[in-house]
Amino acid sequence: MPKVKFLPHGREVEVEKGTSLIRAALNAGVHINASCGGNGVCGKCRVKIEQGAVEGGVSERLSKEDIDKGYRLACISEVTEDIVVRIPVESELDESVLNLQASPRKRAKIKQLDLIDFKEKGVFLPPVEKRYLELPPPSHEDNSADVTRLVNFLKLKYNEHRLEVDFSVIKKISKVLREADFKVTVTLQRSIREDGKTKILNIEPGDTSNRNFAIAMDIGTTTIYGQVLDLNTGEVLAEYGDFNAQMSYGEDVINRIVYAEKGNGLKELNQAVLNTTNKVIGKILKESGVSKDEVSTITLAGNTTMTHLFLKLDPRYIRRSPYVPTCNLYPPLNAKMLGIDLGEHTVALFLPSVSSYVGGDIVAGIMGSLVYKEDELTLYVDIGTNAEIVIGNKDWMVCAACSAGPAFEGGGIKFGVRAEKGAIEDFSIDPITFEPMVFTIGNSRPIGICGSGLITIVATLFEVGVIDNRGKFNRDLNTPRIREQDGVWEYVLVWAEESGIERDITLQEPDIDNLIRAKGAIYSGCMTLLKEVGLTINDLDRIIIAGGFGSYIDLEKAITIGLLPEMDTSKISYLGNGSLLGAKMSSLNNQIRRDVVEVVKKMTNFELSETPSYMENYVASLFLPHTDMNLFPKVSQRIKENRRIIEQIRKGQR
Amino acid sequence: MPKVKFLPHGREVEVEKGTSLIRAALNAGVHINASCGGNGVCGKCRVKIEQGAVEGGVSERLSKEDIDKGYRLACISEVTEDIVVRIPVESELDESVLNLQASPRKRAKIKQLDLIDFKEKGVFLPPVEKRYLELPPPSHEDNSADVTRLVNFLKLKYNEHRLEVDFSVIKKISKVLREADFKVTVTLQRSIREDGKTKILNIEPGDTSNRNFAIAMDIGTTTIYGQVLDLNTGEVLAEYGDFNAQMSYGEDVINRIVYAEKGNGLKELNQAVLNTTNKVIGKILKESGVSKDEVSTITLAGNTTMTHLFLKLDPRYIRRSPYVPTCNLYPPLNAKMLGIDLGEHTVALFLPSVSSYVGGDIVAGIMGSLVYKEDELTLYVDIGTNAEIVIGNKDWMVCAACSAGPAFEGGGIKFGVRAEKGAIEDFSIDPITFEPMVFTIGNSRPIGICGSGLITIVATLFEVGVIDNRGKFNRDLNTPRIREQDGVWEYVLVWAEESGIERDITLQEPDIDNLIRAKGAIYSGCMTLLKEVGLTINDLDRIIIAGGFGSYIDLEKAITIGLLPEMDTSKISYLGNGSLLGAKMSSLNNQIRRDVVEVVKKMTNFELSETPSYMENYVASLFLPHTDMNLFPKVSQRIKENRRIIEQIRKGQR
Repeated sequence: MPKVKFLPHGREVEVEKGTSLIRAALNAGVHINASCGGNGVCGKCRVKIEQGAVEGGVSERLSKEDIDKGYRLACISEVTEDIVVRIPVESELDESVLNLQASPRKRAKIKQLDLIDFKEKGVFLPPVEKRYLELPPPSHEDNSADVTRLVNFLKLKYNEHRLEVDFSVIKKISKVLREADFKVTVTLQRSIREDGKTKILNIEPGDTSNRNFAIAMDIGTTTIYGQVLDLNTGEVLAEYGDFNAQMSYGEDVINRIVYAEKGNGLKELNQAVLNTTNKVIGKILKESGVSKDEVSTITLAGNTTMTHLFLKLDPRYIRRSPYVPTCNLYPPLNAKMLGIDLGEHTVALFLPSVSSYVGGDIVAGIMGSLVYKEDELTLYVDIGTNAEIVIGNKDWMVCAACSAGPAFEGGGIKFGVRAEKGAIEDFSIDPITFEPMVFTIGNSRPIGICGSGLITIVATLFEVGVIDNRGKFNRDLNTPRIREQDGVWEYVLVWAEESGIERDITLQEPDIDNLIRAKGAIYSGCMTLLKEVGLTINDLDRIIIAGGFGSYIDLEKAITIGLLPEMDTSKISYLGNGSLLGAKMSSLNNQIRRDVVEVVKKMTNFELSETPSYMENYVASLFLPHTDMNLFPKVSQRIKENRRIIEQIRKGQR
Repeated sequence: MPKVKFLPHGREVEVEKGTSLIRAALNAGVHINASCGGNGVCGKCRVKIEQGAVEGGVSERLSKEDIDKGYRLACISEVTEDIVVRIPVESELDESVLNLQASPRKRAKIKQLDLIDFKEKGVFLPPVEKRYLELPPPSHEDNSADVTRLVNFLKLKYNEHRLEVDFSVIKKISKVLREADFKVTVTLQRSIREDGKTKILNIEPGDTSNRNFAIAMDIGTTTIYGQVLDLNTGEVLAEYGDFNAQMSYGEDVINRIVYAEKGNGLKELNQAVLNTTNKVIGKILKESGVSKDEVSTITLAGNTTMTHLFLKLDPRYIRRSPYVPTCNLYPPLNAKMLGIDLGEHTVALFLPSVSSYVGGDIVAGIMGSLVYKEDELTLYVDIGTNAEIVIGNKDWMVCAACSAGPAFEGGGIKFGVRAEKGAIEDFSIDPITFEPMVFTIGNSRPIGICGSGLITIVATLFEVGVIDNRGKFNRDLNTPRIREQDGVWEYVLVWAEESGIERDITLQEPDIDNLIRAKGAIYSGCMTLLKEVGLTINDLDRIIIAGGFGSYIDLEKAITIGLLPEMDTSKISYLGNGSLLGAKMSSLNNQIRRDVVEVVKKMTNFELSETPSYMENYVASLFLPHTDMNLFPKVSQRIKENRRIIEQIRKGQR
């Protein structure tokens, strides 16, 4: 990997070939002014290549002379070899600025799990197997019924006992046996109980034992993902995700429940989620070349409300104190009967929930990440509108859900947007000039701020003293970017002429308040759970972050604002879509289906709204990073030191 | 009970008040000429009341003088008190006639079984129970899911473990709980395995524990019977039977299978049997005031073909060697899903079959009669077009089906009819004049001969030497009633002017041949089974006869023709509709459902057509009563003695 050295800082960073120079600077903790999102429009990110060369970087924003002298625009330069780059110093920077403690970008490493892990941990036990059988045909000596013949053969030859036969198999067995000259493949579905029955789920002519598939699905409030799995190899053959058609009935579960309570609402919502599910299934089956009759099981993970709506169960008591769902453990059901467009025999299996707000998606994550089998005391957190928290290990678990509000998904933020093209996702600031460096998704003109961007912006502004620990702007700073508009204080991230929306994009104090409330809800949830079991943050061995949003969070920034507890970031890992992972692992491993019942029983749920200490913890969390700075000793130390340096520089300038 | 003494015979008999005098004579073994079926038309049954008086008996067939002298028509006289009656002797009867060994009518006593028997034998275990529960409502301290609340309560309060919850219960639980203020009644369905799961089948608001019903059904080839049972008391609340609408597609199972193989045949036959079933269910529910939602289970017993057609399973291999059914053990199924018009949650349970021709109807009889729990070595025989035979006791059982042909149901008999109004059902003959005494169902003008009548007629003609042991008429008897018509010998039972069909009703030699083949098939079936297990007739402790037809058979006559083996008739009992009884007992006793799986495994089936000794036994049975008279020592002795006496009388007359 090529090395990039930044002058006058002297900081060095290694980056992948092809990384833009401005990203390399960000990774090194080096600020370069840039407010157009990185597509060469503003021309502010002029840098001088002093050794080596970059790919591109030339623009009409640069004069012929500058280009000849080695100036390039950092945002459109690609690193291909070792280089030394000088950042033009536009104001007289005190050497001290270079002593500011950088917080290089740290994303959580991805916790990868595959069949090999499961095999190593002794939990590889396919829940559905296919067996090719050559039965002896009926004779005068043995004219037992077709079903009896099959069952007896499996007993004698494969020691399969406690067999039960699905009615769909009974319906076609006599035809299939004779068409195939008594050479058939049967699909055996294992019970989730060790002493339970094995069901003969399907019978097919000839040898189809190499065609045994399952579908894993994450039924999310926003998005529905599906995967086709080869049950023989564990391979994912196709994957696809789409917006849940229920989105047009309300963005969050509460709105969906409200809608479900009216007239035909439940029926409509049920149809909507089925439509998306069937669309996703259609796509992935087509892509993988698997026919629906070859799919033995579909395993679905969703939060409690989503699962209720999928099963057309009345969700109304989920949103009413004391928050009672209809059901947490869902029986295996015929997929077709539920309206899922799969084979006659396909079984639908649902991950169980713990409570109204800790659902099958979280349980899936706990199972799929194997937290439930390991010693390490883990904080598992799925960050979203509703954040779910699980703390525990193989011996015990507690869990809770916190209503974080939609700030992480751009809701309640003036210029908040989802993580789409043009969303500001990263940010840096010149602590003296307050000029920003703005990164957008797709390097296009900025259109707003997404969740991970918001965290980074607020953390950075806090680090350099632009906002205080209550999230209020320092009114004394001399820059047009910090201003009061209609009585609201704000920081201008992007001027109208550089933005993609022809307006100034700003971060306002109410936006910061919303973020603080969101992170406060999650952090105080963790604190409350820990306190209830007599532990503290220091007892945690690791953190696992789940949820689509989690992969984009900068860990140091998240710790800086007090969203995550202060911890060695190498102990924080990212699971990705834990719900889908759990559905997949549960499709591949019957042991997980066996274990999950006990795990769910083990998970003690706390209704935070009913837990007295929660409100106290919550209020204490409504600061950056927290009222009790002893919880964030390193952040505290860094901020203090940085502020001192910045203060000195600013004094020097005056 | 009033006594009737017949002169000059001196025989006495006790009868129920209201019995007709002619029936009393029959019961006493006293012959009175009567050929009009017992409705006073022919006027031949003149008798003189010498002591006491009868009700009725006066007709225009009697002169004023005769009436004054005490003459009455026996067929229209009712016995109400002790009487002495003289039969007018129209020919000079030798005293010897009175020494003829009478064979008084002996119907099998009915084997009655009820819940008390089951309780005594320790097999009372309701398969479906209702429990009224007052659940604690949800609270902040316990906001577990509705289903969890219910399951936990049953665990703690009633020690109910291994519970599973039907999806229909999950669907409505939250509504029902809240409507009923958490006071509800649940229906618990026990597993057929002792260590199996108990299913929560239904949940209803309030206390409905006194409303717990089941339906038992016999799905017969010809007739479908249903009963509504109160599961709390075991009482039958309503019963109804109707012709199986499949009758219009063929009278026997072979014709039905042939039809099922064509085009939409299977679908049509399935719909036909469902139509009748639903009609019967509608009637009995209405009569009993039970709603379909109050019915927890419907238990159905039918032969293998009927069960296949009910479940829309292809029956084609049942009729093809080596006679393989699709399935013998049927899983519990949702009744509604099968097209049965009952509640959403009603479970349909089918009695298992043993083989293609020993079906759930026979298994039901074996279970319902408790043969499978007792020591006595029993011959269980269900007589019909297909006769099924089971031999065994609690330790072992063998079974077989014989194709008896339709003779017992009037088929293949020139004047054969079903057991309907006007069918000749009993018969006696004057051994000297050959004049008959004819009884019809409903005492109306004769229209033909039903199965039980046929047995009695042939047995009686054989006893008095009108036919020989090959079933051929004695050509030397001097009576217009025995004649040759178009080369066929026959006996005129009823002259045209007294018949209800304006033709002579006769019994022909080919009719006798058919009966001999039918009885030969059954008897040789028994012999073959006994031989296969190394036993003889003498080892049998008892005989149980099942089937609608069985209750009308005169046991002595059936032994005389060799349909039943010679045995003390007190050891022969009649079970009635064994199929319906078994379905009922299985509805009331889960122990039976548990035991039946083992019983079916225990029942060794013999395909008689594949058993070499069967044909030999069959040919030996094509005599009256049998080639080997040592098998019928008493019949043999009686016939010999009677023939001697009759011969003497006839000689005396010449």
